[in-house]
Amino acid sequence: MGGDHGPPVTLPGLGLAIARLPGDVRFLIHGDEAQIAPVLARLPALAGRTDVRHTDKMVASDEQPAVAMRRGKGSSMWNAVEAVKTGEADAAVSCGNTGGLMAISKLILRMSVDVERPCLVAPWPGVKGVTTVLDVGANIDCDAERLVEFAIMGEAFHRVAHGVARPTVGLLNIGSEDMKGHEEVRQAHAILKSGRFDLDYRGFVEGDDLSKNTVDVAVTDGFTGNMMLKVAEGTARYLGGELRTALSSSLLAKLGTVLAWPGLLKFREKLSPPAAAPLLGLNGIVVKSHGGASDRDVADAVCMAADLAQSDFASEIERNMTRLSAALEAAPAVEEPS
Amino acid sequence: MGGDHGPPVTLPGLGLAIARLPGDVRFLIHGDEAQIAPVLARLPALAGRTDVRHTDKMVASDEQPAVAMRRGKGSSMWNAVEAVKTGEADAAVSCGNTGGLMAISKLILRMSVDVERPCLVAPWPGVKGVTTVLDVGANIDCDAERLVEFAIMGEAFHRVAHGVARPTVGLLNIGSEDMKGHEEVRQAHAILKSGRFDLDYRGFVEGDDLSKNTVDVAVTDGFTGNMMLKVAEGTARYLGGELRTALSSSLLAKLGTVLAWPGLLKFREKLSPPAAAPLLGLNGIVVKSHGGASDRDVADAVCMAADLAQSDFASEIERNMTRLSAALEAAPAVEEPS
Repeated sequence: MGGDHGPPVTLPGLGLAIARLPGDVRFLIHGDEAQIAPVLARLPALAGRTDVRHTDKMVASDEQPAVAMRRGKGSSMWNAVEAVKTGEADAAVSCGNTGGLMAISKLILRMSVDVERPCLVAPWPGVKGVTTVLDVGANIDCDAERLVEFAIMGEAFHRVAHGVARPTVGLLNIGSEDMKGHEEVRQAHAILKSGRFDLDYRGFVEGDDLSKNTVDVAVTDGFTGNMMLKVAEGTARYLGGELRTALSSSLLAKLGTVLAWPGLLKFREKLSPPAAAPLLGLNGIVVKSHGGASDRDVADAVCMAADLAQSDFASEIERNMTRLSAALEAAPAVEEPS
Repeated sequence: MGGDHGPPVTLPGLGLAIARLPGDVRFLIHGDEAQIAPVLARLPALAGRTDVRHTDKMVASDEQPAVAMRRGKGSSMWNAVEAVKTGEADAAVSCGNTGGLMAISKLILRMSVDVERPCLVAPWPGVKGVTTVLDVGANIDCDAERLVEFAIMGEAFHRVAHGVARPTVGLLNIGSEDMKGHEEVRQAHAILKSGRFDLDYRGFVEGDDLSKNTVDVAVTDGFTGNMMLKVAEGTARYLGGELRTALSSSLLAKLGTVLAWPGLLKFREKLSPPAAAPLLGLNGIVVKSHGGASDRDVADAVCMAADLAQSDFASEIERNMTRLSAALEAAPAVEEPS
């Protein structure tokens, strides 16, 4: 039911996902059957692999997380996450209210060892591949310990999702010198630098390091991360539009565009923003797609959820969270940077 | 002396600026004459309009602002700002240490009425023109009142710099609902919404609204603003590189590129980041260019400084700061948003 458009976009998204997934992947669709049935009727291949679980209750897009948690029981979002808890589903996907999804997921699935709240991850495309950026919107205020947790969860996620044996980790800041940034980021830097963690920590990185893929995992608070993600999406969309204008500005330019088309098609893919972000830190897999998700974005999110469910992602996170707990106990008291 | 390269880049930058400025604009160059003289010797047109003020003292790029302020007297940065104070110069331009420039400028030029610290502005190009974004790196921790000050200073700057009679103002946040974001941003929203200010305030905007130019002026704290600016620069550079690859991927693509070249040249300009940012809130004009500035970037910064010096920018800010002071006194106590 989530996203700006609901079933008319989410169900065709599932239809696209089918073609990319193994034949034994099945779907539970939670929501209002009266809205779902007519769309599903036009997608017979999907209908054959789908069970609809009716509910007319929904979490609204402007609902406060605490309210979603208290009153959300029996809503489509709640039921989707609960199916992961009961083991009926291997993963849940939502394009709905991010704060609500986070609160409900936390309540139903509980957190991994010692993690306070889930966080959101985004794959950031760049010149050398992909950087995993977190948190991109789940946690607005983050203290130093939260940022360190992100580093450890992000590293584990990157290893599983991208098959990198020892991912490098950086902390996003507005400069590379130790004295830069606010207190939380300087304290997290001091903790990560202490060497008590089994991480390949590379220190501070800046906003332009993301597209350079300077590190595999880049850590920041959810406010900054969400802003950066939206800025990158906006910049890419703007430049894509400007390029279109430039390439249709004359007859010769249009002819040139036709000749260069195969290359330009590949370029166009680079302009689309990452469509899906898993919630990290939960005992279970929940993937969030953005509210304005298209059917292709929904398909990407569903495929990511299926990939994660088939990997050893959950146990990898579990192992690392135990490590985090031990490391935090052993960590030295943080000194105020001079 | 500032920036990654010093005189070999900053002086040719002045050389480029000459061609774009009225013939009566003259330059004071502050720094080490031994480094300046050989470069200036190769730029006779510039040399004729320049006085060199020798000092071998410099503010280092990693110097703490407080240290720069205490020990910076007599440095090239200090002397450039002091020349504005004495009236010998109409504006100062630096590519040096941002924090140091801010501290020294504040000490020498003092702040306008009721402004605590200067802030940095960036022009943000987009589909409909330019959005003025502030703060982009001068103030890391900002309370609600600071954010409101940015709104008022940014609106005044945008009116002067872009000739818009009544600029629209937005507050950057991770969503458009009143409950979104951290406390500072929600409080600033409540103050701006109260209607006690003579501003066309449009509420919350998101990261992707910058390239859409949804508002004329977008306000945020210096940490987030700097991150966003670097992300936009990084994204543009990455996409520019990918486009180059795409357009040289085959012989046909290369031929197409030649045909579309005039359009592509126009597009390439859109990829370059804004080169200069004025410090707002001072009794005097100081423009900062980034550390990695090229000669063209230096020229852009110098031309911006000259434009501001010739406008009624200073008195416009002064008028608005008086208005801010009165409005803040009249503003209602901020209620905690429900």
